[in-house]
Amino acid sequence: MLHPKSIAIVGASRDANKLSGRPFHFLRRDGYAGKLYPVNPKYTDIDGVPCFPDVASLPEGPDLAIVVVPQTLVNATIAALGRKGTPVAVIFSSGYSEIGAEGVKREQDLLETARNNGIRICGPNNLGLINAFEHVTATFSQYADTPPIAGPVAFASQSGAFGTGICALARSRGIGLGYFINTGNQVDITLIDALSEIADDPRITVLSAYIEGLRDGAELIQLAQKAMAAEKPLIITKVGRKAAGARAAASHTGSLAGEDRVFDGVLRQHGVIRARNEEQMLDLVSAFTCCRAPGGNGIAIITQSGGAGVLMADRAEELGLEVPVPTPEIREKLQDVIPSFGSTANPIDVTGQFLAEPKILSESIKIALDDPGIDCCIVWLQLMHGHSDLLAGVFKEVKASVDKPFIVCWLEAPETALRQLREAGICVIGATERAVDAVAGLVRYGQARARYEGQPPPISTHKNRQEPEKAIAVSSMIAAELLRDMEIPLVSAELATTPDTAREIADRFGYPVAVKIESPDILHKTEAGGVRLGLRDGEAVAAATKEIMAAARTYNSNAKIEGVIVQRMAEPAPELVFGIRRDPAFGPVVMVGLGGIFVEILEDVAFGAAPVTPSQAELMLDGLQGRAILDGARGKPPVDRPAVIKMICDLSRFALSHPEIVELDLNPVFADGNGVIAVDWMMMREAPE
Amino acid sequence: MLHPKSIAIVGASRDANKLSGRPFHFLRRDGYAGKLYPVNPKYTDIDGVPCFPDVASLPEGPDLAIVVVPQTLVNATIAALGRKGTPVAVIFSSGYSEIGAEGVKREQDLLETARNNGIRICGPNNLGLINAFEHVTATFSQYADTPPIAGPVAFASQSGAFGTGICALARSRGIGLGYFINTGNQVDITLIDALSEIADDPRITVLSAYIEGLRDGAELIQLAQKAMAAEKPLIITKVGRKAAGARAAASHTGSLAGEDRVFDGVLRQHGVIRARNEEQMLDLVSAFTCCRAPGGNGIAIITQSGGAGVLMADRAEELGLEVPVPTPEIREKLQDVIPSFGSTANPIDVTGQFLAEPKILSESIKIALDDPGIDCCIVWLQLMHGHSDLLAGVFKEVKASVDKPFIVCWLEAPETALRQLREAGICVIGATERAVDAVAGLVRYGQARARYEGQPPPISTHKNRQEPEKAIAVSSMIAAELLRDMEIPLVSAELATTPDTAREIADRFGYPVAVKIESPDILHKTEAGGVRLGLRDGEAVAAATKEIMAAARTYNSNAKIEGVIVQRMAEPAPELVFGIRRDPAFGPVVMVGLGGIFVEILEDVAFGAAPVTPSQAELMLDGLQGRAILDGARGKPPVDRPAVIKMICDLSRFALSHPEIVELDLNPVFADGNGVIAVDWMMMREAPE
Repeated sequence: MLHPKSIAIVGASRDANKLSGRPFHFLRRDGYAGKLYPVNPKYTDIDGVPCFPDVASLPEGPDLAIVVVPQTLVNATIAALGRKGTPVAVIFSSGYSEIGAEGVKREQDLLETARNNGIRICGPNNLGLINAFEHVTATFSQYADTPPIAGPVAFASQSGAFGTGICALARSRGIGLGYFINTGNQVDITLIDALSEIADDPRITVLSAYIEGLRDGAELIQLAQKAMAAEKPLIITKVGRKAAGARAAASHTGSLAGEDRVFDGVLRQHGVIRARNEEQMLDLVSAFTCCRAPGGNGIAIITQSGGAGVLMADRAEELGLEVPVPTPEIREKLQDVIPSFGSTANPIDVTGQFLAEPKILSESIKIALDDPGIDCCIVWLQLMHGHSDLLAGVFKEVKASVDKPFIVCWLEAPETALRQLREAGICVIGATERAVDAVAGLVRYGQARARYEGQPPPISTHKNRQEPEKAIAVSSMIAAELLRDMEIPLVSAELATTPDTAREIADRFGYPVAVKIESPDILHKTEAGGVRLGLRDGEAVAAATKEIMAAARTYNSNAKIEGVIVQRMAEPAPELVFGIRRDPAFGPVVMVGLGGIFVEILEDVAFGAAPVTPSQAELMLDGLQGRAILDGARGKPPVDRPAVIKMICDLSRFALSHPEIVELDLNPVFADGNGVIAVDWMMMREAPE
Repeated sequence: MLHPKSIAIVGASRDANKLSGRPFHFLRRDGYAGKLYPVNPKYTDIDGVPCFPDVASLPEGPDLAIVVVPQTLVNATIAALGRKGTPVAVIFSSGYSEIGAEGVKREQDLLETARNNGIRICGPNNLGLINAFEHVTATFSQYADTPPIAGPVAFASQSGAFGTGICALARSRGIGLGYFINTGNQVDITLIDALSEIADDPRITVLSAYIEGLRDGAELIQLAQKAMAAEKPLIITKVGRKAAGARAAASHTGSLAGEDRVFDGVLRQHGVIRARNEEQMLDLVSAFTCCRAPGGNGIAIITQSGGAGVLMADRAEELGLEVPVPTPEIREKLQDVIPSFGSTANPIDVTGQFLAEPKILSESIKIALDDPGIDCCIVWLQLMHGHSDLLAGVFKEVKASVDKPFIVCWLEAPETALRQLREAGICVIGATERAVDAVAGLVRYGQARARYEGQPPPISTHKNRQEPEKAIAVSSMIAAELLRDMEIPLVSAELATTPDTAREIADRFGYPVAVKIESPDILHKTEAGGVRLGLRDGEAVAAATKEIMAAARTYNSNAKIEGVIVQRMAEPAPELVFGIRRDPAFGPVVMVGLGGIFVEILEDVAFGAAPVTPSQAELMLDGLQGRAILDGARGKPPVDRPAVIKMICDLSRFALSHPEIVELDLNPVFADGNGVIAVDWMMMREAPE
């Protein structure tokens, strides 16, 4: 599909203004060197190129077919192409799932036709692909109205219209797109498939994608791992950040597992950089094509406007970047070059004097980047239309002599300077905060690389399971046994079927104890009057057992009551919550969060796809809003972080080795300086067929 | 200063490339119609205009003087101008507070010179001002390298370099700046002064400012009130959002009152729209010049890309905007015009068909805006370079026939369309999320107008007080009396000096009670072992009294121990915190927040400047992250919201009527469905001289 030596255009038109005429026109215009076979019974040739009446008449099965026939003719065309030996077809035709149920049915038929005839398909309802290196302009996108310029960036988009817009924006920033692929309805070939293939192309250094929905998260993880191994940053914009939450189950637990937060967690976990929107995506793409990842999170801000400097420092702090004051030696060196009314603290104000003495600017950047605490630099400028060459020269000279990355934030930069800097591989961003956001992306990627290299995660080989039709509760004692097998620490707990055995167990545990109803039919124990805490002697235990069993029968007279669970009471400590979910896209995922209002009001939880490595678990904790609690806020000692991390990793192993478990909640888990211990657990498994 | 009939340029150069030559050159080039008096002993004329050897030789005292002499000559020049009767001078010269202590001293001398000679000054260290209506290009800013184009926007900036960049960005978006003022070091005239004056100009409809620091918050509030009364939106970018926090006192309470959060609260309170950065400022300016404020927060998103629609819907939800499904009647009407493979839900997908049938687009916008739940519309487009005139025509036609506002989000829009839309007063924004952010600004301003019109706040006449050198604790009983006078509800509390009186008081209150140490020298009572809660009988009270008085003496042997406060225990309920602070810029401000981890870990508090109206208090509550608690989360009933609001307003009255009180903490305040009650209070007042 990506490197065809011959292309058939089935349904090609002579009219270059028509959707069906544009690919032929573009391919010819851009000098596509392979063979072109227009197919249309109306013509004998298009623009001098012989035109064939039908697929069967083609002299060979082309490497790629573009299908632009009416929807009703698509299946027959695909079958004919398959028979001819064409390995893959791009289908522009629409009228499929985008129109509703009838279209979904058509897609199933189409896929079946393709499979039966041994041909892969991209689309339908897409606008094609571009391989700009080999002049494969196999698209009708408006973006190709001007010939595409090849470059080190691959961009794949599920959306045609938005994708076209993003390509055009990339062009106007001077970003060269080696590949652009629109996968439309993704009946067969997905954009993840396409990017996985492209990741092998040495001409490509940055991968980017716009995603609307994801069927197979495992594929995405595998792509992320491949990109990480190849040292090619992967930047993804995915919409549905909020709507996803709304679609999620109405139940509170359901809403916590809202797929977008899982998506976000998995991206972080695997070093994928998520861009909020098209603008941020292009800022990041631009930064990644020009800069290697910084070795740390210290940045220098070099400016001739104090205000812009403060704005950038504000944003840097918000994004977890450091803006360190340079070392005394570095400040001394800066003092030697910067006018006395400037500033050598960070932000570093070089004043407007550098127009008279360009060395002020170039030396300041070099000196700042010599500071061991500074990993990356932003240089802020505005206008300077009379000094384009001078400034471009300064930055080119700096680029040639420094190892650490820097980017230029230039408001209303002159076009001539922009052109020179782009040619020199220097990233220029035209808005103050966005420049800092881009640097933060570089830093996050650098951190992800360090995690990856320090502790390479196992290669994901997970295959997704269908979601079960029905789930049932696992009894507390069986759940406890399964969890203990995986070294998950739980409070001592035993099942009692009578008040007397309850008392015996409690005597053995020592007081105080808790007693909870045990029934597969009662999930909300407190609501059923089925929980008693802090029982201080055998009398109380026996009485409580009798009472809650009675209360449970009143609450649900059909419930199967198995008895009560007697538990040792744990020392109160900061509360965490842990869980396992089956995400429809990613399969088994682990959740961690802070308990109480953090989880209930703020929904402050983080997700990771199983398996989770310790450094990935650490990253999940760093993503929590209330993470200060873990460090020992409110006069409490810090919690045992290694134990928390082990719990996350153990739960992820548990999730992988128990694919039948669809949900697990450990809530609360008490975490103090000496470890973690779960005091309540609820496990659901697939119902047997 | 803004409308001079004559301008002297003291230190004018013949060289238009020099800072000192630029204002003369610009004024002549732009056709300034008043008299121009260059002053420089080296010339007899500049470009044919007579040049005067010194200020004394001028034929009249000009309305405005531009001073570009070396710093050492500034004071003499200002004195001479004052004597000549010139009312105001703009001082470009630098070498003042921006260089440090020596410069601060020079500024004081300069201000004194100006006052002694009856002349106002703007600057020093600024780059001048522009009144583009009257061609007063009294600046050396690079922005004026191209003649300024007048328009309905005034922009004032403390920063010269950043301000210049913002002006240039405004120009390239086609935003006409009627005024641009850079106030530099603001020794005398501030940008607030300038904007207050400009607010009266009927040609100006939008006011905007870039601020680095604020000396007099009362002035800003007065400007905000004036702008609100004149129905002119005021948009402000202020830097130091984070650094401010770092500068704040190290103590936890201190950090809560970090000035930027106060600034942010006061802006919201008074209907000022805060822009994060220069880009957002210009998006908002552009939206406000084209659109009236919507009547509500319902928006329609009209698009030909499903993905862009979801991205905008995500962002809308994040910003508290509604994206309602249209009414059945409206959907039916939409169905009549939109192709069947489009969507009439919201986002409304009109498909690409509108290029063939423009009515699809124009009718869809009009029909959507007819929906009573839709107050504003965003139309999303990309490229369409072959259809500029058609699309511009559609939008112009729509603009002429709808009352409700709409904006166009157009990625990589063709220049010709942009020009036509600008001329027609239609706002175009070139990035997807930023378009939603701009609409959110319109909506917030509409909400602020509704609050203002429903309940006009009293005109602020507050004058700022100097911060006191030293503050001392007010005794709990006096504090209680002062607070009760203002109807602030507190738990019953009385001072006891002996264990026996403590027991008597407790008997009278009924049990349980709390006993707390009372000493002006012990602020951290718990730390001093000075608090006992839940005492259930007289014995316990007497014993506790004895013990805590002893503990307090051990804790601080020099402390004056006045006795203990005996308090009735309140029923536990959700905890709030309230407070009063003296902000260095805004004077008395009220703080409200949720207690416990919300305030301690998340610093989730909101500020408002006194006086606070009920609708402003409501807005403060809406700004809290944990506001769900107020609505009765975690199985609790909702709190008595009117009582919370009354508490905020009463505290603001208290702050105004007690200027000697520099700090008050009510923490915790229990809030349930039947009211609020403070169970602990700490009040600090200025120490007497």
